Amino acid sequence: METELSKRLGIEHAIFGFTPFPAVAAAISRAGGLGVLGAVRYTAPGDLARDLDWMQEHTGGRPYGLDVVMPAGKVEGVTEADVEAMIPEGHRRFVEELLTKHGVPPLPAGEASGWRITGWMEHVARSQLDVAFDYPIKLLANALGSPPADVVGRAHDRGVLVAALAGSAVHARRHAEAGIDIVVAQGYEAGGHTGEIASMVLTPEVVDAVGPLPVLAAGGIGSGEQIAAGLALGAQGVWLGSVWLTTTEADLHSRALTAKLLAAGSGDTVRSRALTGKPARQLRTEWTDAWDDPDGPGTLPMPLQGLLVAEAVSRIQKHGTEPLLGTPVGQIVGRMNSERSVRQVFDELTRGFERAVDRVQRIAGRSAS
Amino acid sequence: METELSKRLGIEHAIFGFTPFPAVAAAISRAGGLGVLGAVRYTAPGDLARDLDWMQEHTGGRPYGLDVVMPAGKVEGVTEADVEAMIPEGHRRFVEELLTKHGVPPLPAGEASGWRITGWMEHVARSQLDVAFDYPIKLLANALGSPPADVVGRAHDRGVLVAALAGSAVHARRHAEAGIDIVVAQGYEAGGHTGEIASMVLTPEVVDAVGPLPVLAAGGIGSGEQIAAGLALGAQGVWLGSVWLTTTEADLHSRALTAKLLAAGSGDTVRSRALTGKPARQLRTEWTDAWDDPDGPGTLPMPLQGLLVAEAVSRIQKHGTEPLLGTPVGQIVGRMNSERSVRQVFDELTRGFERAVDRVQRIAGRSAS
Repeated sequence: METELSKRLGIEHAIFGFTPFPAVAAAISRAGGLGVLGAVRYTAPGDLARDLDWMQEHTGGRPYGLDVVMPAGKVEGVTEADVEAMIPEGHRRFVEELLTKHGVPPLPAGEASGWRITGWMEHVARSQLDVAFDYPIKLLANALGSPPADVVGRAHDRGVLVAALAGSAVHARRHAEAGIDIVVAQGYEAGGHTGEIASMVLTPEVVDAVGPLPVLAAGGIGSGEQIAAGLALGAQGVWLGSVWLTTTEADLHSRALTAKLLAAGSGDTVRSRALTGKPARQLRTEWTDAWDDPDGPGTLPMPLQGLLVAEAVSRIQKHGTEPLLGTPVGQIVGRMNSERSVRQVFDELTRGFERAVDRVQRIAGRSAS
Repeated sequence: METELSKRLGIEHAIFGFTPFPAVAAAISRAGGLGVLGAVRYTAPGDLARDLDWMQEHTGGRPYGLDVVMPAGKVEGVTEADVEAMIPEGHRRFVEELLTKHGVPPLPAGEASGWRITGWMEHVARSQLDVAFDYPIKLLANALGSPPADVVGRAHDRGVLVAALAGSAVHARRHAEAGIDIVVAQGYEAGGHTGEIASMVLTPEVVDAVGPLPVLAAGGIGSGEQIAAGLALGAQGVWLGSVWLTTTEADLHSRALTAKLLAAGSGDTVRSRALTGKPARQLRTEWTDAWDDPDGPGTLPMPLQGLLVAEAVSRIQKHGTEPLLGTPVGQIVGRMNSERSVRQVFDELTRGFERAVDRVQRIAGRSAS
């Protein structure tokens, strides 16, 4: 599965795998794709360095990338405490009442929230970059908005390609003007932050908007047939995130959550502001229902909502409170029905792609392989 | 573009074109696809017979189909007047106030509403079928729910294949159990009634659910690349509706509406209950905004909403009241930017399909045509 972009990056298959787990990212790179490690959960630069050291040892010299969250615009001189102070008391009460109702205990004394909003703040992302640029990363992806110009410059100086996610052609054009190298067109059906345009429509629209810049199709892709569809739509590669969550290498820290993902159907996700304040697709739970309830207080804007719920999310995960337990995941969760190794998933993706190409060749009246 | 299904139907390309306009349906059939005429707007059986006579003369002997709206369950002994009586006075007032605010005049004396809800009622659909079965239609499609068993039987006795639209695998299985022959998997991005699952995820899910029954991919398809994507996902054909609305053969009765469609972007549609009471994708307008406004009265359930707004919709169309003027249409409206003949659109679809097959063949390392 070779495109201009995959050749440029020196990978065998134009499959980009986003994951917060180093073991998954390394396995994707070893399998011939590009593993892209999500950095948002790292608050201490030392932790990121430790995991990038590990990546260096376990990718067998194959290329890999890093995904950060860095807004192009920034507010000077605002601290996390300033932001905390903007959260209404009623919202804090709503969180506590929800947790109490479901019997979710506090975190053990001395244990900090594992899921931190701080990774979303620019100074944290910048300290992550200072670490990352010491490693031979091949791709730097920015999950929200265009990266700042100086960051694009630093990446290019080091020969690192820069990618950014877009949910519309307008966003994609903005990224192109910011000098990035790859646009990830993230459709409505994707896990995490999404717009309203589905991949079938979004992918070619973004290709038209930014060509000849390469575009990756993201959202709704969890099989080789879906990869073929994304590539038929003009993408130079595909960006998969959800499908790795139920691999044996993933470390969700919660068997209950894995069980929920394996059992969920494609209709069991919701695009909700419950997690970050911006619409993000995730498992639908009593937690998202409570935030989306018109009779509740509603969500706060980013970054307040993320800050408000960070500790609660950690408590829910730690305690494994089934009705509240969720995670960002796309509609393809419906086909994530067994735990397999990254290698098995990857092999199935490439086999399914070959089958789909056979299929369209036959329909076009050409002999298949 | 040949599949088992296209061979069975005797059509050159596995492209199914749904349209309320006989001239469009006939042109699709002449171009080598299957034109499927929407019957919901016909209230008098004589009108349908007149247009089917016309189709017979203008399809050059090529196959064509008919689309009706017929619910499997029915309520005995309920008249249109009974249903009218269930509409709250406040809702009627809301409609009148909206129309007055925008200066929409009444219909001319003696002129009935062109857009009638009656086509949605079973006895009307049945009288349409009595007419249709006198013609050599090849396909009978049902737009909402599974068709009743006796209708499926009548169709099969005449060698007519029966198709039904589904927005989820559960619906698709129900159709299969009802004995239908083809499932149209209608994704979130489609115009008209849709569920929440996008085509990229829905198509293969429905194929898995009802295989070996043939599945048509619908929703988000307006180019040959999108056709290739739908077929790569396992469909045996594609079902296109929106793309024909801006063909020169289409008769929207409103230049203002055509202009709106040509100008709209993929983000200018909304999935709203404003038209029928069930979520249907359509152009977003001040009309849909008013119904979706949490401070308004909200929509009524089907069939009340359709009955409530039928005359208002006719008045808006007749008068061409730009801010309120809308139509069911999918997210592909973003690429409907010029008026062309059905033949031109069709040729572009088949050429784009060939390009997309070339593309995926090359990516798979196989020589392209």
